[in-house]
Amino acid sequence: MAKTLIFGHKSPDTDTITAAISLAYLETQLGNEVEAVRLGEINKETAFALDYFGVENIRLVGDVSKETDTVMLVDHNERNQSADGLENVTIRRVVDHHRIANFETAEPLFFRAEPVGCTATILYKMYQENGVEIPKEIAGLMLSAIISDTLLFKSPTCTTDDEFVADRLAQIAGVSAEVYGLDMLKAGADLSDKTADELIHIDSKPFEMGKFSVQVSQISVIDVDAIMNQAKQIKAAMDAHLISTNQDEFVVLVTDIINSNSIVITRGNTPQLVENAFKVLLHNSTAELPGVVSRKKQVVPQLTAVAQSL
Amino acid sequence: MAKTLIFGHKSPDTDTITAAISLAYLETQLGNEVEAVRLGEINKETAFALDYFGVENIRLVGDVSKETDTVMLVDHNERNQSADGLENVTIRRVVDHHRIANFETAEPLFFRAEPVGCTATILYKMYQENGVEIPKEIAGLMLSAIISDTLLFKSPTCTTDDEFVADRLAQIAGVSAEVYGLDMLKAGADLSDKTADELIHIDSKPFEMGKFSVQVSQISVIDVDAIMNQAKQIKAAMDAHLISTNQDEFVVLVTDIINSNSIVITRGNTPQLVENAFKVLLHNSTAELPGVVSRKKQVVPQLTAVAQSL
Repeated sequence: MAKTLIFGHKSPDTDTITAAISLAYLETQLGNEVEAVRLGEINKETAFALDYFGVENIRLVGDVSKETDTVMLVDHNERNQSADGLENVTIRRVVDHHRIANFETAEPLFFRAEPVGCTATILYKMYQENGVEIPKEIAGLMLSAIISDTLLFKSPTCTTDDEFVADRLAQIAGVSAEVYGLDMLKAGADLSDKTADELIHIDSKPFEMGKFSVQVSQISVIDVDAIMNQAKQIKAAMDAHLISTNQDEFVVLVTDIINSNSIVITRGNTPQLVENAFKVLLHNSTAELPGVVSRKKQVVPQLTAVAQSL
Repeated sequence: MAKTLIFGHKSPDTDTITAAISLAYLETQLGNEVEAVRLGEINKETAFALDYFGVENIRLVGDVSKETDTVMLVDHNERNQSADGLENVTIRRVVDHHRIANFETAEPLFFRAEPVGCTATILYKMYQENGVEIPKEIAGLMLSAIISDTLLFKSPTCTTDDEFVADRLAQIAGVSAEVYGLDMLKAGADLSDKTADELIHIDSKPFEMGKFSVQVSQISVIDVDAIMNQAKQIKAAMDAHLISTNQDEFVVLVTDIINSNSIVITRGNTPQLVENAFKVLLHNSTAELPGVVSRKKQVVPQLTAVAQSL
């Protein structure tokens, strides 16, 4: 039988890539035939982490049903964020830290979700429960994921579990979370070579909210002005995306990872989703969202609540 | 703030009732304010178990949103099997061993599902992971749940985890799983005082399968003939249920728990679900299903696969 494929969401980020690698290592130690794969190009932050800890990038796959019957999902569960061909394979396991939606199986499976900041924090517990030692390079990748998802422990999604686990992982990996973390975040925040279309797809996820289909992207940077200087091109790229996908709304967060604020840009037929969710008035499709850094905790639930009321 | 309510599915069985009690005890030990409640009358088997281990029955609730903002689900996740008012409360935790479907949250939560025979088996692991000792009477209830869901370890849903955990629980409870278990199953299988309408609702769950709405009930007995002698009245009760609910099909399994076989009775507009799922020809809405004892593993996935292809 073909190997079970393990993968995170499309538009992969550091947590998605490293969670696939970390779960694959754990499953292999437990005697299971698995392979970690990815559904898109890795970003600069993830490339920095893989390079720093000397771990090879994983293989890109397309329609997963063309090469296997069984898969495991990490860092996501919503089918529209997942692999092509998912409807034709059996999901054996899910490890995730997001809301659960648009997910359905015909048979029972292993499903483990916890409301923590990062998939790596749950995986750390699974290593402990199974008595499997975490290799230095895997610990480094898991630490990278926690730093990435919590913006160095500053995001409101960050829990005491995440901090505790990051501390243990930093010890195993032999790095300072603060020093290594800032270098990694800076590497990821360098978007100077990206086109407007690339910027809005670096970290981009589709959501079904009530009867609306909404794309929510996040551009995490140190220099917000450098991004906002391209606002016109970004809006044009967002409009082009909406035309090609038929989605209702495209919401882009431009997040200042140093000062923990965001600017939201929204395009589409339902800008009132953003205005009502954040009690803001849009000017030129744009508004400031002070203190907002987490799509998962500070944006998606709020947009969903408004969408369900319309 | 009001207590978090913990409950299993409607038409409660032994696993659903005892899982609510067992998780409530664990959560209380961990310092959380919770109350185990139920969504319907308990059956004779559950009453036997509660009485044997000296545990009081739990409180019946209606619309849960009238008394709390937060809930935990055990032994189910599908919203149409769950409490009234569920859409108005926040689900904090789910512990389950069924397929995942018709389940959606706005925010991340604790969700733990494993493909084992019984919720109690997962709860046992959670007690271990949290270092909480299982009291004798809780162990007895958890053992009762495993015996009930696996038909004394004979169901194809039974895993080595279930057997291992049942063995530990029997030691804590100070009973023989075989001797106590047969007594408990016999107590539950005495349905001599039930009307046809009561029989089809003792253990009854609605499912959405493809575009069809299907009710699947199970009547577990020692004397199958005594049930089948009432087949005419049972079919009439099934027809009345379909008229009042507007569901598409009603499937009743009459299961011989000693010899591990079932007879299926199906009523509604889509009997081909049953005919195609089990490759049988119905006679008077009825067919034999040799070796079938598990709704979860041997019936629901098969019906769902056919429903999705129609």
